Amino acid sequence: MNLLLIAIACGVIAVLYGILTSRQVLASPAGNQRMIEVSGAIQEGAAAYLRRQYTTIAIVGVVVAAVIFFFLGGLSAAAFLVGSILSGAAGFIGMNISVRSNVRTAEAARSSLQKGLTVAFRAGAITGMLVAGLALLAISVLFWYLTGPAGYAPNDRSVVTALTALALGASLVSIFARLGGGIFTKAADVGADLVGKVEAGIPEDDPRNPAVIADNVGDNVGDCAGMAADLFETYVVTVGITMVMVALLVGAGDLLVPLMTLPLLIGGVCIITSIIGTYMVRLGAKGSIMGALYKGFWTATLLAVPAIFGAAWLALDGNLSQTVATTNGTSFPAINLVWTSFIGLAVTALIVWITEYYTGTNYRPVQSIARASQTGHGTNIIQGLAISLESTALPTVVIIAGLIGSYQLAGFLGVAFAASAMLALAGMVVALDAYGPVTDNAGGIAEMSGLEDEVRHRTDALDAVGNTTKAVTKGYAIGSAGLAALVLFGAYTADLREFGSQIGVSTDLDTLFSLSNPYVIVGLLLGALLPYLFGAMGMTAVGRAGGAVVEEVRGQFRDNPGIMDGSVRPDYARTVDLVTKAAIREMIIPSLLPVLAPIVVYFVIGAVGGKENGLAAVGALLLGVIVSGLFVAISMTSGGGAWDNAKKYIEDGNYGGKGSEAHKAAVTGDTVGDPYKDTAGPAVNPMIKITNIVALLLLAALAGGAH
Amino acid sequence: MNLLLIAIACGVIAVLYGILTSRQVLASPAGNQRMIEVSGAIQEGAAAYLRRQYTTIAIVGVVVAAVIFFFLGGLSAAAFLVGSILSGAAGFIGMNISVRSNVRTAEAARSSLQKGLTVAFRAGAITGMLVAGLALLAISVLFWYLTGPAGYAPNDRSVVTALTALALGASLVSIFARLGGGIFTKAADVGADLVGKVEAGIPEDDPRNPAVIADNVGDNVGDCAGMAADLFETYVVTVGITMVMVALLVGAGDLLVPLMTLPLLIGGVCIITSIIGTYMVRLGAKGSIMGALYKGFWTATLLAVPAIFGAAWLALDGNLSQTVATTNGTSFPAINLVWTSFIGLAVTALIVWITEYYTGTNYRPVQSIARASQTGHGTNIIQGLAISLESTALPTVVIIAGLIGSYQLAGFLGVAFAASAMLALAGMVVALDAYGPVTDNAGGIAEMSGLEDEVRHRTDALDAVGNTTKAVTKGYAIGSAGLAALVLFGAYTADLREFGSQIGVSTDLDTLFSLSNPYVIVGLLLGALLPYLFGAMGMTAVGRAGGAVVEEVRGQFRDNPGIMDGSVRPDYARTVDLVTKAAIREMIIPSLLPVLAPIVVYFVIGAVGGKENGLAAVGALLLGVIVSGLFVAISMTSGGGAWDNAKKYIEDGNYGGKGSEAHKAAVTGDTVGDPYKDTAGPAVNPMIKITNIVALLLLAALAGGAH
Repeated sequence: MNLLLIAIACGVIAVLYGILTSRQVLASPAGNQRMIEVSGAIQEGAAAYLRRQYTTIAIVGVVVAAVIFFFLGGLSAAAFLVGSILSGAAGFIGMNISVRSNVRTAEAARSSLQKGLTVAFRAGAITGMLVAGLALLAISVLFWYLTGPAGYAPNDRSVVTALTALALGASLVSIFARLGGGIFTKAADVGADLVGKVEAGIPEDDPRNPAVIADNVGDNVGDCAGMAADLFETYVVTVGITMVMVALLVGAGDLLVPLMTLPLLIGGVCIITSIIGTYMVRLGAKGSIMGALYKGFWTATLLAVPAIFGAAWLALDGNLSQTVATTNGTSFPAINLVWTSFIGLAVTALIVWITEYYTGTNYRPVQSIARASQTGHGTNIIQGLAISLESTALPTVVIIAGLIGSYQLAGFLGVAFAASAMLALAGMVVALDAYGPVTDNAGGIAEMSGLEDEVRHRTDALDAVGNTTKAVTKGYAIGSAGLAALVLFGAYTADLREFGSQIGVSTDLDTLFSLSNPYVIVGLLLGALLPYLFGAMGMTAVGRAGGAVVEEVRGQFRDNPGIMDGSVRPDYARTVDLVTKAAIREMIIPSLLPVLAPIVVYFVIGAVGGKENGLAAVGALLLGVIVSGLFVAISMTSGGGAWDNAKKYIEDGNYGGKGSEAHKAAVTGDTVGDPYKDTAGPAVNPMIKITNIVALLLLAALAGGAH
Repeated sequence: MNLLLIAIACGVIAVLYGILTSRQVLASPAGNQRMIEVSGAIQEGAAAYLRRQYTTIAIVGVVVAAVIFFFLGGLSAAAFLVGSILSGAAGFIGMNISVRSNVRTAEAARSSLQKGLTVAFRAGAITGMLVAGLALLAISVLFWYLTGPAGYAPNDRSVVTALTALALGASLVSIFARLGGGIFTKAADVGADLVGKVEAGIPEDDPRNPAVIADNVGDNVGDCAGMAADLFETYVVTVGITMVMVALLVGAGDLLVPLMTLPLLIGGVCIITSIIGTYMVRLGAKGSIMGALYKGFWTATLLAVPAIFGAAWLALDGNLSQTVATTNGTSFPAINLVWTSFIGLAVTALIVWITEYYTGTNYRPVQSIARASQTGHGTNIIQGLAISLESTALPTVVIIAGLIGSYQLAGFLGVAFAASAMLALAGMVVALDAYGPVTDNAGGIAEMSGLEDEVRHRTDALDAVGNTTKAVTKGYAIGSAGLAALVLFGAYTADLREFGSQIGVSTDLDTLFSLSNPYVIVGLLLGALLPYLFGAMGMTAVGRAGGAVVEEVRGQFRDNPGIMDGSVRPDYARTVDLVTKAAIREMIIPSLLPVLAPIVVYFVIGAVGGKENGLAAVGALLLGVIVSGLFVAISMTSGGGAWDNAKKYIEDGNYGGKGSEAHKAAVTGDTVGDPYKDTAGPAVNPMIKITNIVALLLLAALAGGAH
């Protein structure tokens, strides 16, 4: 139990770090009257949006909680609610920090680049540590309560189901937040750009644009709140499912508690290395912002190596060579779980590097899109799509290598630990990501408040890096989600083995899950379809909501000619309200798709081909979603990032620079990339996991629940 | 043996129909001097391209033939060569008919729309019947030779391997032809449009555009020769693999020969119904061209119902209720194979209908893209991508329903017969498709020869329909390929069962192929990657080659100002030559990807995880390619078709019509859709099958060949 307390303590440290650092940030000056006014409008819009979003999610959440209560009992329903509330809280806190730091970053950038960087990065780090800390606390405290006061055995079914329900709560909020926030931010962005930049010819973030506040609100509710909820979810799901796998595969024995606690401990120590990492973020002699951020990231990653080793040493009482024997007959020395954790770190590092290659302005992919822009809009898009397809190859190979390596060392448990170790770095990665919207907003505020040009240049420099870190985080999130989802799938098969007789499945699992069973093929096809359908809905939603923004902005310009000459202020709130309503409306149906799909497939295929084939089809569906979702998500997030930076590359003076024909084509590419990388692509990540978690709970419900 | 002769006779009838009808077409007047000149230039360019393409393919073909000879013996090598040569011949004949009919269609359109339609459709029908006839003859005669003069038992391994090698020959040529032709046609098209329409502001097919002849050559070598080789391949592979499945699953017995011959017989009778269908293509009172073509298609399809029934009656000697017992323990009444064939027809009809919905100007998808064009290039692309993702859903559901239905009725044999029945209609479908490039060229010739405006209006009307029929054919090709590939995968598992001990695989197949084997997951991921990588290569190739055309055309305009005022004729041949070289160069590496992938995966995964897991990974790779390829191909072909027709819809006077801002955005969408629908998308189809066939031959080679 001591070990668990260490993990809980690390979580508390993360929260304390968050509280102390936010005091520091909030203590820095908030700028002049106009800046405070602008930032107030953004705050108000973001809060109004999140309020409405959470109200809607609450309705869905209560229904799902009732269903869980009915089929799986009160404990699971409570765990589900805890997961949802904390996932929502992570997003809410992230947004609140972000909308208060943006103006302070702008003000700090008036003195120097370093000061701007410090405020913006600290703001990101607060969100990062709170996400990781809250996630770790949620699982650790739940596990402590269940195995302590509540008196369950660690591998009791109730514990497994409660951990899974906790994960579902986190995932459900996260898919709504990702999708709703993603639709909001991109509808506002696309709408603002199309009328503002393209039609009216006014610069980005011009205060005359009625959609400008909505655009800035979007950065906070999409890139910040949505992303925070997403990574909270990924953390809870991955660490939770790793514990579940230990419970399922290690069985009762001396190693059960240490190995179930180890993922929590790894998460805990990595929070400490991440906090140390945040203090390394400082501009060097060359003044490279990316270099400064990477110093923090690499510190956290390299320190994680001895830290994880130490955690394992502690958990296993110094005996790392003892044998772990799993219930499915394999065994391996315990130290292999340390090696697989290192594989997880290596996968993280490689994916970060590959994503930077595909989305950074220094490399072939982005430059090839910029070059293609010279021959027009069409060739920009063709090359962008080609890069987006191509960008899936290396990450897939890395994930495959990680999968094989960790499986060879320790079976599915090894894969689970690799995924957990990836997520252990989440605090640092979220810090890098959450830094992005803060700087983006700071630039907007500088522009709208008419600050000195120099300030805008500094915030632009900070923001350009934010583009890459955002892409990198998404690559990391989807890569870790891929591994985590494979573990979830492993849990499904392990559960099916255990529940088989209770559900009334007589066939041997291998026969059922054989690729030569046509229902497996059917499941794979249906699973592969989900990300496509989901992506189509996300893209259409942005198109539709963006179109509505265009109409609204055009209307305001038409009805009120004073806006363009600066004599009248546009009605920002009306635009924010319009985007809010549109985003909420559009997020519901696609978010329910992965929740309902496994249930519908089980009952429909079960009716046609029998219960056993229904379960086989659901299993294959899970794998189909993972396989297809991985490619859809990577191609969308990397492709979108590449388009975005191809525009930036041209704006840096290449191929004619700003205002050239090539630049116009690149703006088109950027517009297309927006919903790709910020709406549809990242939302595929929670979608994959929800499908898997719902399937796990479906099995539990079919087996009679865990009342 | 009588039954086989009937099938051969039907093949001969198809060839005779082709010869007689081409005499009719060639006897119709070829127009004035200028028209003959233009068409001569197109002919020359197309012939030069195909010559170079076939020379390159021949080199690869000889190497592959040598490898096959070494590992699998002379018979298979010979069958491989026959398959390649005939696949090449199908493309060559199609191209030759097409380049001679284009000018005659233009001339006929001077008298009336009906006359133009007649010539163009007859030209298409010649190609269609020759493709189906030659494919049927290739398999029937090979089967006749092997089981007659050569004296093998019908289910002898040598027969199975020879049929597979025949299929590989057809597939290999087809992937080169699809990809090379696809790159040629779209590079020329994109290049011609970008400089001609967009920069110089001259209309499509304007004789002043140096890329105009290359563009017209492209229609013939891509849409016509490439497509003919593709469907020849699909036909041979599908019918061949159905016979192989019978040989593997039915085993020695009275039913072996009848059931192996039945797919050939079904192909034969459907050639006759298709020929009857071609005579039904006539404009009705409303003058609807699409209606006229559909009359032919529906006649062929509906007549196929009694024809297939009759063929089965004949093959089974009137006893349709006798029991077919398969070697894997299932049994069903023989008439179920008739029902599954009808499922194949139903799947064809539904896919045709769905594809028309997604690509026709009368429905929501195309209109939504047109509407989105009003807000600019970016929203046009976003909506197009959304539609392209969405368009995968219904065809997948139809294929799944067909798969479940036919499997329930007759196991994998049922799926095979459903796929065969789909392909039996190939003659008619190719006729509809090959009609497209003829009318497209006719319009070009009319424009370049300065014929009356009325003629161009008539050819435009014919061509607009060609757009939809081309999309429909691609939907059909990929749908049938999906089913055929599943049968190929079934053959892989059946083969593995049979060869297992010879190769030294001791594990039970179900365990090996279980989704809980991580090497299966690895294989699925690698397989899913292939279409993405292949698509990326195809798109990049078009972008690169198109860019070269842009440079070339700009150069000609610059060096020779007389071109724009019409006083000097541009150097068409130089552009054709440039595109030829680029297309050949670009087609090689992507075409080899699916050939090498299964072999590399087997050896690499085999080295890491053992031979058995190597075979499991290859099996999963096949399924991964199918699952992912289906979505990539459908989304690309339907999405591309929708973009194309959204432009047409605007040109018909909607949302501002030609020259409006919406039209410019729609032109961008069309440009993007071009390599999607005509290069990368359709080439995924042979790619899926090659991967599967290579894996089958790999198994045969590992088992010691069939010397």
